[in-house]
Amino acid sequence: MTQPPNPGRLITFEGGEGAGKSTQVVLLAQALRSRGLSVVTTREPGGSDGAEAIRALLVSGEPGRWDGITEALLHFAARRDHLLRTIWPALQRGEWVVCDRFADSTLAYQGFGHGLSAETIGSLYRIAVGRFAPDLTLVLDLPVEEGLARAGIRGGAEDRYERMELGFHQRLRQGFLGIAADNPRRCAVIDASPSAETVHRIVLETVEARLSPP
Amino acid sequence: MTQPPNPGRLITFEGGEGAGKSTQVVLLAQALRSRGLSVVTTREPGGSDGAEAIRALLVSGEPGRWDGITEALLHFAARRDHLLRTIWPALQRGEWVVCDRFADSTLAYQGFGHGLSAETIGSLYRIAVGRFAPDLTLVLDLPVEEGLARAGIRGGAEDRYERMELGFHQRLRQGFLGIAADNPRRCAVIDASPSAETVHRIVLETVEARLSPP
Repeated sequence: MTQPPNPGRLITFEGGEGAGKSTQVVLLAQALRSRGLSVVTTREPGGSDGAEAIRALLVSGEPGRWDGITEALLHFAARRDHLLRTIWPALQRGEWVVCDRFADSTLAYQGFGHGLSAETIGSLYRIAVGRFAPDLTLVLDLPVEEGLARAGIRGGAEDRYERMELGFHQRLRQGFLGIAADNPRRCAVIDASPSAETVHRIVLETVEARLSPP
Repeated sequence: MTQPPNPGRLITFEGGEGAGKSTQVVLLAQALRSRGLSVVTTREPGGSDGAEAIRALLVSGEPGRWDGITEALLHFAARRDHLLRTIWPALQRGEWVVCDRFADSTLAYQGFGHGLSAETIGSLYRIAVGRFAPDLTLVLDLPVEEGLARAGIRGGAEDRYERMELGFHQRLRQGFLGIAADNPRRCAVIDASPSAETVHRIVLETVEARLSPP
């Protein structure tokens, strides 16, 4: 199964730790539902039973538990299951899917962060995802220190990535900005510094401009 | 990390269900140890903490739990961890590693069995394993019905692959024989029909002829 014809739309949120992705997923889904759309919210890694089981392997344990290549293989395995079980069926039903992270996070984290080549990540993408891509990717951009400070407030057990060193998060931010620059038709960079309400207003304006929801 | 210089040797056993691989792993390890070699026995999927956690996802649940591509990604993730944590360190210490299944099983099961292309499996191999390969692969060959009857006797909970339909296991057998024919310097096919003792004698003769252990 590769790309189905999609009456629905897939919108992904990307960005570093503490940028407010999960909040914006909820706010955007509410706004789209208020216009009569059927909306599925989901996240990566995870979003299906199998992918959530793989997520449990990825987000717990020591920072050095997996090397970058193993991690990329696990992320694409989870993504494949997520697409097959959750995203593609929803799109075929005509629903809008709003997803917290997608493949750009693998390129940013394992590619720009851990030094895997773009060619390797591209090969895995073609194997696991095929020619399919999100209709719109919103990159929430924030200075690294500000994002980590916000993420630190949140706490919680799933903090393996957040404990990695600062240079890693700097490469990550530049990675996301580079991906957006390389894919201007699919991606939009949004300044995540203002209040959640202000960011949401800009998100909604971007979705309206790019995808013309009802 | 790709292929290290290896003072040790990696011997892999391959073949369908019930061919006697795990028994032959034990017998070969005993024989090599009796000659003064330091021997590690291991298995795939698994063989390291991380890979065993991935194994738990692969060998339990319904036959349709994962599609072939997801399954191949998980197998290569487990293999990468197994190589990094167990096989490559042992080889660098000069030990001999005897492994129950390796990458040929992924090509046979997900490739010939589930219809993934050899190109896809080859891409994943290059990403996860690099240019490294076993020094010797022993393919234990058995008629499908005989192997499944033997496997059926064994029982146990990890039987997801064994419950798949007969045609799948026929493609698997032909897959292993084709891999051996394509890689005659690395592989040897051994008739697994005789007693375990007779098969072990042929295994040992083959190891002596190919790898000249002390």
